[in-house]
Amino acid sequence: MSEQKPIYLDHNGTTPVDREVAEAMWPYLTEVYGNPSSTTPQGLQARRAVEDAREQVAALLAAHPDEIVFTSGGTEANNLAIRGAAAQAATPVMVTSAMEHPATIAPVAHLRRQHGWRVHELPVDHVTRIVLDQWPAGPIGLGTLILAHNETGTIQPMQDFAETVHAHGGLVHADAAQAVGKIPVQVDDLHVDLLSVAGHKLYAPKGIGALYVRRGTSLSPVLLGAGQERGIRPGTENVAGIVGLGAAAEAAGRLLATEPGRQSELREHLWRRLSARIPHLVRITPTENALPNTLMVAVPGRLGADILDAAPAVAASTGSACHAGTHTPSASLMAAGLSENVALGALRLTLGRSTSTADIETAADTLIRAIAAERQTA
Amino acid sequence: MSEQKPIYLDHNGTTPVDREVAEAMWPYLTEVYGNPSSTTPQGLQARRAVEDAREQVAALLAAHPDEIVFTSGGTEANNLAIRGAAAQAATPVMVTSAMEHPATIAPVAHLRRQHGWRVHELPVDHVTRIVLDQWPAGPIGLGTLILAHNETGTIQPMQDFAETVHAHGGLVHADAAQAVGKIPVQVDDLHVDLLSVAGHKLYAPKGIGALYVRRGTSLSPVLLGAGQERGIRPGTENVAGIVGLGAAAEAAGRLLATEPGRQSELREHLWRRLSARIPHLVRITPTENALPNTLMVAVPGRLGADILDAAPAVAASTGSACHAGTHTPSASLMAAGLSENVALGALRLTLGRSTSTADIETAADTLIRAIAAERQTA
Repeated sequence: MSEQKPIYLDHNGTTPVDREVAEAMWPYLTEVYGNPSSTTPQGLQARRAVEDAREQVAALLAAHPDEIVFTSGGTEANNLAIRGAAAQAATPVMVTSAMEHPATIAPVAHLRRQHGWRVHELPVDHVTRIVLDQWPAGPIGLGTLILAHNETGTIQPMQDFAETVHAHGGLVHADAAQAVGKIPVQVDDLHVDLLSVAGHKLYAPKGIGALYVRRGTSLSPVLLGAGQERGIRPGTENVAGIVGLGAAAEAAGRLLATEPGRQSELREHLWRRLSARIPHLVRITPTENALPNTLMVAVPGRLGADILDAAPAVAASTGSACHAGTHTPSASLMAAGLSENVALGALRLTLGRSTSTADIETAADTLIRAIAAERQTA
Repeated sequence: MSEQKPIYLDHNGTTPVDREVAEAMWPYLTEVYGNPSSTTPQGLQARRAVEDAREQVAALLAAHPDEIVFTSGGTEANNLAIRGAAAQAATPVMVTSAMEHPATIAPVAHLRRQHGWRVHELPVDHVTRIVLDQWPAGPIGLGTLILAHNETGTIQPMQDFAETVHAHGGLVHADAAQAVGKIPVQVDDLHVDLLSVAGHKLYAPKGIGALYVRRGTSLSPVLLGAGQERGIRPGTENVAGIVGLGAAAEAAGRLLATEPGRQSELREHLWRRLSARIPHLVRITPTENALPNTLMVAVPGRLGADILDAAPAVAASTGSACHAGTHTPSASLMAAGLSENVALGALRLTLGRSTSTADIETAADTLIRAIAAERQTA
């Protein structure tokens, strides 16, 4: 195995922390150490940093700063949104999709099992978009939908979803963990009441996230304790992480003018190069309404994990999980109607800010060779 | 107001991040950015860092690494311990004390209101220690007790508490957020099943903590999502924070040989200097069984907040909260039997690793002058 660093095409798994983000955090890991709840000068300095970051995150989403609640990440944001809103809902009826992240699936399942919620899963069509005409009758308490899918990159028609949920009396939550920073995400355009942000998908560190809560939306806390974050999310604030998320939001806002276009061109370059040389290659990521950085492809009849094992110079993901030697295709890919034969052969190649044309070409050629070599030995 | 940095005597509010902790974290905010759940080389490197930190935290508590679950802080650790254990308990009976942190009070109140738990609060005696002979009859589901109090510094007789709870069939949780790193905390000596750790009280950053979960203890998750932390705490791991907590645990283990003695001598020096010059000064922190760094005192009939306002060169806390100009004494101090007259006059002076003899003397003289000046103008 080469000592050279592999080409990182796993940006939907996690992003590197932006250098300016890490540098913005450093003072809050060293000289500025106050507790934002304290009235010491140190505490007030930390409090100001938290509020500045709140403005930065709000600006990226075109929201008000008082609508941003900091959390420990996307999973906690989803839990707070879904369970927090459900605790205040009059109608225990949920609408969601068949292609959600575990951080949505698990809270929704909990509401169904423990609190008697009825759950309607909207199916997806042949391009993995939710089908909007299979709506349940009667009032809705909450709709929750993944804005951009972590595996396929599919961007869902959130506005249409939100309008229908609202028309049925429900609140709308968007799991935008994978979307924020990759495409413009503005809460009023999307018509959402709640929206989850995950720092580490956005060139901020792991362990920090945020939930947008539209003014006037009633939410019960999930974690219980003191009064931080207006009582919605107790616990001493992760000041350095919050400062990092703020800096990352500001950088993302700036780069939205150029990076989506640049990455989507590179992504198409990658697709053309791979599909020209790999017979029967399937494109799972839709050609429209998809994240610009995401290309999920599949080599039917092969195992994605075997291909990546044969191509250690490329760091990427598959569409399956492996436990004790048995490969299970992703539930989302099965819900999207892929055959197991295709889903097990899936590769998720996700680009980022540092990805260059040379990276794409080297990665493509490496994967092509690995697949050809594996074919010969198979 | 002087431009010089005030003398920081608010270490129970939060500690500075140790320089070696911040430096240990830096690589995980820059070049090592993998997702520990990913099998990319970057992911495996992050996974190893998380597991190394787990060993460091376990070593400080004399626990096994597989007994450590990382959380976003002390509040989440308490929620996970109390609500996670309650969800599995056969007997909905809680024993706790009258002097707990909001991160215990709130989950316990939730269990009482939402899940029908009966809650017995052990009172405290004249030295703020729990009274162990006022025990409820019958079986117990869970006992939760603050090991060292954040305001008074009182160290509770955890072993005796744990033995009695165990004898009544219950599990035992220690909120050790304020104790870990300040005094030796070993889970077998304490006979506890669950124990909360808060990074930012331990010279690690804010936003990271841990829960010790004794092998064989059944716990339901509080946050719901994917399978991280053996399914007990989902969400992408806060790798840099975890690495910081590990480094902080290692440093704390080393410094336990010297710092408690050094700080407790300084603390007594502070007490002698203050009490010699401030008439009627009350010592709230007990002379025995207290954190070595903590000195809570009170000037009866005065307002702690006014004293600190008159002494901007000292950064410390009071024993009260101020909302809209009205000062409310801490619930713990009232539960400890202090009169409101005394509790409102309380000052919490808490020392740390960087506190020097000169700091103590300057701080003492500043407070003495502030109190005398305020007396003249009052």
